[in-house]
Parts: sequence; structure tokens; C-alpha cells
Amino acid sequence: MLKRYFPILEWLPGYDRQTLSSDAIAAVIVTLMVIPQALAYALLAGLPAIVGLYASILPLFAYAVFGTSRTLAIGPMALVSLMTGAALSQIATPGSNAYLEAAITLAFLTGIILTLMGLFRLGFFANFLSHPVVSGLLSASGVLIAASQLAGLAGIDASGFTLVTQLSNLLSHLDGIHWPTLAIGLASVGLLQLFRRARPRLKDWGVRPRHADFLVKLGPLFVVVLMTSICWAAGLPSHGVDVVGDVPGHLPPLGIPSSDPGVWRDLLVPALLIGIVGFIESVALAQMLAARRRQRISPDQELIGLGTSNIASALSSGLPVVGSLSRTVVNFDAGAQTPAAGAFAALGVAFVTLYLTPLIHFLPIATLAAIIIVSALTLIDTRTLRRTWRYSYGDAAAMLATIALTLAQGVEAGIIAGVGLSIGLYLYRTSRPHSALVGRIPGTEHFRNIHRHQVESSERVALLRIDESLYFANARYLEDTVYGLVAEHPEINHVVLICSAVNLIDASALESLEAINLRLKDSQVTLHLAEVKGPVMDRLKHSDFLEHLTGQVFLSTYAAWSELRHGHKPAMATELGETPLDNA
Amino acid sequence: MLKRYFPILEWLPGYDRQTLSSDAIAAVIVTLMVIPQALAYALLAGLPAIVGLYASILPLFAYAVFGTSRTLAIGPMALVSLMTGAALSQIATPGSNAYLEAAITLAFLTGIILTLMGLFRLGFFANFLSHPVVSGLLSASGVLIAASQLAGLAGIDASGFTLVTQLSNLLSHLDGIHWPTLAIGLASVGLLQLFRRARPRLKDWGVRPRHADFLVKLGPLFVVVLMTSICWAAGLPSHGVDVVGDVPGHLPPLGIPSSDPGVWRDLLVPALLIGIVGFIESVALAQMLAARRRQRISPDQELIGLGTSNIASALSSGLPVVGSLSRTVVNFDAGAQTPAAGAFAALGVAFVTLYLTPLIHFLPIATLAAIIIVSALTLIDTRTLRRTWRYSYGDAAAMLATIALTLAQGVEAGIIAGVGLSIGLYLYRTSRPHSALVGRIPGTEHFRNIHRHQVESSERVALLRIDESLYFANARYLEDTVYGLVAEHPEINHVVLICSAVNLIDASALESLEAINLRLKDSQVTLHLAEVKGPVMDRLKHSDFLEHLTGQVFLSTYAAWSELRHGHKPAMATELGETPLDNA
Repeated sequence: MLKRYFPILEWLPGYDRQTLSSDAIAAVIVTLMVIPQALAYALLAGLPAIVGLYASILPLFAYAVFGTSRTLAIGPMALVSLMTGAALSQIATPGSNAYLEAAITLAFLTGIILTLMGLFRLGFFANFLSHPVVSGLLSASGVLIAASQLAGLAGIDASGFTLVTQLSNLLSHLDGIHWPTLAIGLASVGLLQLFRRARPRLKDWGVRPRHADFLVKLGPLFVVVLMTSICWAAGLPSHGVDVVGDVPGHLPPLGIPSSDPGVWRDLLVPALLIGIVGFIESVALAQMLAARRRQRISPDQELIGLGTSNIASALSSGLPVVGSLSRTVVNFDAGAQTPAAGAFAALGVAFVTLYLTPLIHFLPIATLAAIIIVSALTLIDTRTLRRTWRYSYGDAAAMLATIALTLAQGVEAGIIAGVGLSIGLYLYRTSRPHSALVGRIPGTEHFRNIHRHQVESSERVALLRIDESLYFANARYLEDTVYGLVAEHPEINHVVLICSAVNLIDASALESLEAINLRLKDSQVTLHLAEVKGPVMDRLKHSDFLEHLTGQVFLSTYAAWSELRHGHKPAMATELGETPLDNA
Repeated sequence: MLKRYFPILEWLPGYDRQTLSSDAIAAVIVTLMVIPQALAYALLAGLPAIVGLYASILPLFAYAVFGTSRTLAIGPMALVSLMTGAALSQIATPGSNAYLEAAITLAFLTGIILTLMGLFRLGFFANFLSHPVVSGLLSASGVLIAASQLAGLAGIDASGFTLVTQLSNLLSHLDGIHWPTLAIGLASVGLLQLFRRARPRLKDWGVRPRHADFLVKLGPLFVVVLMTSICWAAGLPSHGVDVVGDVPGHLPPLGIPSSDPGVWRDLLVPALLIGIVGFIESVALAQMLAARRRQRISPDQELIGLGTSNIASALSSGLPVVGSLSRTVVNFDAGAQTPAAGAFAALGVAFVTLYLTPLIHFLPIATLAAIIIVSALTLIDTRTLRRTWRYSYGDAAAMLATIALTLAQGVEAGIIAGVGLSIGLYLYRTSRPHSALVGRIPGTEHFRNIHRHQVESSERVALLRIDESLYFANARYLEDTVYGLVAEHPEINHVVLICSAVNLIDASALESLEAINLRLKDSQVTLHLAEVKGPVMDRLKHSDFLEHLTGQVFLSTYAAWSELRHGHKPAMATELGETPLDNA
């Protein structure tokens, strides 16, 4: 019980020197990766760069205690930072104290929501974002994130959280391009792209694949070091190139959420959406990696792990945090065995925050923008769209709508529309269930669609297989189907509903069945059921439907057929003798 | 084609003298019923009583041309009038010209929406209101409607569209009770109740059941005549009893919708909800009666029929109209054969409007309130709540929430909450599908749950039956189930997913299947499918899943079992010889 809520108790008692060394090596690499990312993502959210480092210390300790994934690397992440910026810019001016306070409040609220969801075991909520919607969301936010950083790359003072505002702001400020900044920015983009494409080259040079991977992953760090050095050596800030500037060299100050209830109310929906998006990304990632090592994670406990991490981030003046895709994969590949690797990385970040901030004074903002742009472009995924289009137009349409709305109205609108469309599509699909009249395949107990197979059937016994659970959205459709069948074939005396694919009959469908039973009775037609599943039958026994049913409930279609065909002349085949199957 | 959009062409060419006489008799009875109801329901919507008559002429002609039900009686209806009043009172003051104009706009907009839905064949939208939600809505609106008329019954000037505002307005105006009005009102209620209960007595007196029914249905008309006479004879208006008063004796004036776009925007959601509620009630009614005569109606064409009726109502200065339960049943019982009966009733109402309005001058408002109260109380249906509770707590909870929200926040909030809850409940139910490991019932081709039945199974071959369509909300759950199974039973070599109850695999579930396939491959476990339905298989062929699948797709569970068990020692039973079924 204690272990369920404190997963640290699973691994801490058995912690040994060998695990320590694996974790420590992974931690060093993750620390080197997290620094440029954390600075850049804080900037993306419209916050001072140092806030990104604040959000990469305490949350990692919290996750080490409460998280169930052994390798998930917590911290700021591009999409969530974009959503954070969009939410905060609605209620405060970037750069103001109110903005910072709102960021802390948002992280706190996200943490509370996630933790409560975990305690109430609401992890399944995340399932309502379908894969195509999530993929569309990521692609569109990749475009949005990249576009949002074009201004920073060119030294223009313009921002926005929808594509239209971003591009129009950019175009109306084109005269404000700061050419030295743009040069630094484009050089950074070029170098980052070089690193990304360097892997095959490095292998040609005899570098081991594993080492080549790490060198490539550390590309952003090299670019940061190089550009910071150039900026310092050439005295570029005096020529108007924006740099990170003086950063206080101390541990994160205590963060205190806003005391204004209006701010809490305004941030409620953004916090919920950030929490859900972050949770989905993190859990999918954690699950994928856990499966590779045949470990398991608990989605409900993951909510608590992420929730406490966000509360920890708020208390240390940070922004909302989630599991980071790139760092988690590196952490896993580098051999991290337990969440202690995350805690060690947090110690590394704390060390940098305390002693090394003077080194990032000359880091150009344009370089951070370049890092964001290059990593955001990798989110754009046209392959999934093509595959989904080939597989199902409906799913692809939901994906396209999510992309269009995210670009036009921002991430929140995209998520809400995507979820709505996915659910609507599913309900539409199930509201017109496939059904088939079936007949017996001669010599077997199998019954198949009379339009697809050569089967025996009787014109007086209609065997109707319903291929869907019966619920309110298709209850009326079922009535239509049965009445249509009986109206077209006045010779029918028995209707058998085959329920092998009926997993649920809700109260609405029960009423429809009762109506069908009554109206068939008016027309001297008997209604039977066959192959009703155990749970469905249990439920039916709580109603009086079975008492009023004019016919019987057969265990199998074959039993219904054997019983009902007697006394009626077969329509398509001669009467068969008893087969060995009749007693089966 | 022409007949589809103009159902009148179905019956008009064959119209003969006998049908004419049946229709005419039904029309006389319906005309006598409609007059007090139309006056009362207009009042309920906060409109002058005469507007109810206006809405009972032209719409009936429109429905006769475009409607598919032979017996549906169109006109004002209690629930829709309540919703109309609630919507109009948001944007105008009752009694003002703006209020009347808004009513015309609402009817027009409702008509346009319904007609468009019909043309785009969106009739299935109505299915998303589940039976328990509709039943809860009717019960709660029965209470609301009755409570809203208590003020009119007592001569108090107070109104409201939620129970709290109604009751608080009433209590704060208790000192304003007008005792002669209350006396008229209570006497009307008493007489109406007497009529309702008179049927058995009439039968005792030797009146034929059919005649007794009609006498009872005409109760409101008798009460209206009696109370109007008393009011006239005793000169009650001079004592402060409110009466209908002078009514212009002419045909409905041309109605012109508002030219203010703001009004249209404000009325959009109410018009949509009124349209959907009216459509559901009308279609359910029409379907029920059509089935009794083995006729059929077309839901999509019904949308057009109701839509044009509402446009006709707007053009003749009326309020939103739908099929009326009580009048439709009377029309049916009286032997109406075609919608011409409705057109004849419209002629009757037009005659009354032209020549007989002086007769209703002295009709007391309290009597109309009494008619509404008595008929509203019949909407309250506690039996369905009890039955639903017994059958399913989930459905009953959705119903209770609809009732509570309708009483507290009005009909619109109740509908929206009811639909949301029904959908949420269904998604929750399908998001955690039942699944079962199955084994073979010895000597048959049947496979059943190994925990419920005595079956043969193999410890190396897991036969997993999934009892739900696979879609985004349960895709992750499926992954969990399979990984959990394999993690708990490391001896498993083959996993067979039995898809007999899988009616759909959406893009998200396909990705999950691909992930399952890959991860099982990593663990040297082969994934197979069995009993995949035709449409699902067709869809899968549009992806490359089948090429990557490590195992096979078997036609039946039995085929999978026959193939895979060889080479593995059976776990619970001795190896069986080939049975005659193996070639089936």
C-alpha cells in the first residue's frame, strides 16, 4: 500500500554501487542536454530563461519519490511551454511580475489537478485523445513553435500564439530586423542542422554508433558554447544583439501562487489541458520504454508523480513540467536504472545555477530561438497523416481539423476540437451498426451472412446478427432495422436477434427491445435472442424484459435454428438429417 | 425522387370519398381540442393567447405537404413553449413587440435548422438524447411547467424559467393573490381532474369506451365554455379577473423575422435545442403510430416536414411548433387516414380565428393556467426512474442529473448535461472493455471463458477474446491487458486476439496493435488474430499491419487452436485426436 503511493520504496532499498554508477553516467549526459533546453523553453513560454533551470531541479526529486517510470526525464517541454505562454499572455504582460506569478500559479494548479486525478484514479481520461489527434496536435504545434521563434531569431520584438497573429506580427515588423542577431540565429540553425545530419558521417569516420548518437545529442550544447564565446569575444551585446544577461546565481526562490481567485479561475482550463497533454505524452513515453525492459508503470500513480513534480516546480518558482521526449530517450539509452538518475541530474542543474550562470551571460537569445526551431520542426509528422488517410478518412479528417484549428486558434482550441471530433466520429460510426441476416453453412454450426455465403435459411425464421453494442445512439436504428425487415418480408414468423457482438444493452436500447417485442407481437411475429453474453444477460435479469419476451433466449444460433426450423419448410435447401453436431 | 421530398404525392392521387369522411371526422375532434391547448401554450411562452391559434393554421398545411406521418398533429406543445419562453425572456420583455418579433425569429430559425438538417440527412443527431435523459427532461419540465402556471392560477404577476426563480417569485408575491381568480383557477383544476377520472364512471353508465374516451379528451373544451360563461354572466373582469380579452378577428398577419443579427445569434442555440427536442418527440410518436398500421416514416423527411411547418408558423406570426402527443393520439384514434385531416383541422382553427374570437373574450387566464397544470402533471413519470434505477445505476444517474439540472437551471442546461453525461457514460463503459481468456469446450468448436467453464487450454497459447470494438478510448487499455498477460505468464509463446466482438478498429487502435505486435516480437511472442469480421479486415488491408504481423489471421478460434497447439503440450487436458469438426 505504501509502495503504491511511494514507488521510491520499490527500488531504494536495493540500491547498490553498480546502479549508482549507471545512473550517474546517465545523469551527466542529461544535465548537459537539459541546460540549453530548459533556458530555451522558458523563453518560449515568455519567461526569463533562468526559470527553465528552476523548473529542472526540485521537480526531478519529487518525481524520483512519486513516479513509477524508471527513466522518465522531467522538466520543461516545448508544447507545454507554448501552451503555458498562450495561457499566461491572456492575463498578464510578459516580463511583468504578475506574469511570473501567473506561471507559478499555473504550475501549482496543474500539479493539484494531476494529483487529484491520480488519487481519484482518473488516468483513463487521457484515453479520450486519439492518436491521430495527438499526432495532429504535435505537428501543428511544431509549426506554431517554430513560427513563434522566427521573431527572436531575427531580433524582432513580436509574438503570438496562433499562426495568423505570429505571421502578421512578423510581417509588420520586418523593418525591425536586426541583422547581426539574424546572422547569429541563422548560423546557429545551420550548425544545429549540421549536427543532426552528422551521424552517418561520424560513423564513416569510425566513431561507434552509440558514441556518435551522444555527440549528436550534445549538438545544442556545442552550439551554445560556440555562440556564447563569439558573442563575448566580439562584444556583440554592445551592437544590439540580445543575450541572456545577468542571472542571479542562487538556488530557486520560494514560489508563491497568486492570491487572486480570478487568476485561478482563468487558469483552470489551461491547467487541465496542460496536465492532460503532458500526462498523455509522458505516459506514452514511459510505457514504451518500460515495455522494452518488461517493466510496468501505473498510469494513475504517474498522475501523482507528475502532479507532485508540478507542485514542486511551482514552489521553486518554475513553470509547468512534464516528461521530455528527447531527454528521456537519452537517459534510457545512457543506461539509467532508477529515478535516482533524475535526482543526480537535478544536482547537476543546481550546481550550474549556483556557480556557472556567469558563463551564460553572453548566450544569444537568437541561439536559443534556433534550438527551439530546429527541435520544433522534428515534431512535424506528415507520414502519420498519410498513413491515417489511407486507413480511414474519418480519422484523417479529425486529424486535419485538429491541425487547422491548432494553427488558426491555438493549441487549446485544437485539443478541444480534436477530442470532440474523435468522440463524434466514434458515436456516428456506432450509431448505424452493421447487421446481417445469417444462414447456416451446411454441415456446420456456423452461421454466416446470407448475401456473402452459400447458406441454408428459412423464409419464416429471420436470423439477424447485430454487430454492435446496443445503446441510445443506435437504439432507434435497431427498431428501424427490425421493422423494415418485417415490413419487407410479411412471411416471417420468428425474428432471432444474434447478440454475439453485443457487449452492452443500455436502458434506451432495453426500451427499444421492449418496443420491438410488443410491435412484433401485434404482427404475430415472435422475438427470440441468441448468444447473449453473460454480463449482458445478468443485466437483463434486472428488468422484466425476459418475462415479456414472446420467444426464448437461445444459447447459440445453432440451438435457435434447430428449434425453430421444425414445422417450417426450408427455403433454399432440402431438410437435412441430424448431423453429429446436433448434440454438441 | 419528387415523392421523397413531397410525400403528399404518395396519398393525394388516391384520395377518395371514404378517406375524406374519416379525415373530416378526425379533424372536427382535433379542432375542438386544439383551441384551448393552443391558447394556453402561447400563454406559457409569454405570448398573447391568439398567437397559439396563428401557429395552428398554416403549419398544418405545410406538414400535410412535406410530412411523412399520416397522423401527426402539428402545433404548439407544452415543453417547446416553455423552452420558447425561456429563450425569449433572455432577450426581450414579455408583452413587447420585440418579444413577439423574437418569437417569430425563433420559429423561423428553428424551421431553417430543421429543414437544413433534413436536407443534409442529419436525422441521426436525435439519437444522442438517450431515453432516460428524455424521460428525465419531460418529468422535470412537467414540474417546471406546472410551477410556472401557479402564478397565473392565483392572479399573481410573477414568472421564471427555473424552479428556484419560480418559487421565490411566487412566495415573494403571495400577498398579491387575487382570490376570485384563484377560485376560478382551482375550480377549473377540479373540473379537469373530474373529467380525467370520469372514464370508468362513464363506462358504468353504459357509454361506449370509444365515446367515453372522446368525452374525456374534450374535458378542457367543456371547462373553457363553462368558465367563460360564468365569467361573462358574473361580470368577473370588472372584479379584476384576468381574461383573454379582445382578440382581432382576422387571419394571421404576415410575420417578419428580426433584422437584428444579434437576436439571431442569441436564438441560435435555443432554436437548435427546440428543434431537436421537438423532432425527437415527434418522430418517436410518428414512428409508434406508423408501426401500428405497418406504415413507415422517414426521419430525414420528417425534419423537412417539421422545418417547413416552423417556417410557415413564423410567416404567419406564430411560435415554434412540433407534433403534439395528445392531439396526435386523438387524431389517430378518431381514424385520420392522411395528413389531410390536419389540413381540415387547420381550416377549422381558421374559421374560429375569423368568426368566433368574440366568444373567447371572457375566457379566464386562470382556466388556461389550470389546463396547462393538469396536462403538465401527466408528464411527471417516476415509474421510468424506478425501472431505470433497477436496470442500471449509470443510466439512472444520467437521468437524475438531467432532472436536477433542468429544475435548477432550465431545460437547455438539462438537455446539454443529459447528452454530455449519456455520452460520457457510454465512453467510460467502452473504455475498459471486458476481455476473457478462453479455452475449448471438449468435443466442440466452442471456446469459452476459462474461469467460468471447464475447458481445454494450453499454457503456451493465450486465446484472448476482446469484448468491444477497438478505438482510441480503449486502445491503451488493450495494450495494458496484453502486456499484463505476457508479463504474468512468461511461458506464453502465442497470443491470439479473438475479434468476434470487434466491430471497428480505428487508427488509434491500429497503432496500438502495431505496438503490441512489435513489443511481443521483442519478447519472442507471436501475435495472431482470429474471427476478424469482413469490414474490419477490409480496413486492415489498407494499412501495412498485416504485412508486419508476426503471426497469422485465422478464420476461427478453432482454426487457430488446431494450428497452434501442435508442438506444445496441452496444459489441462490430454491431447485429443482429430475430431470430425477439423475439416468443417
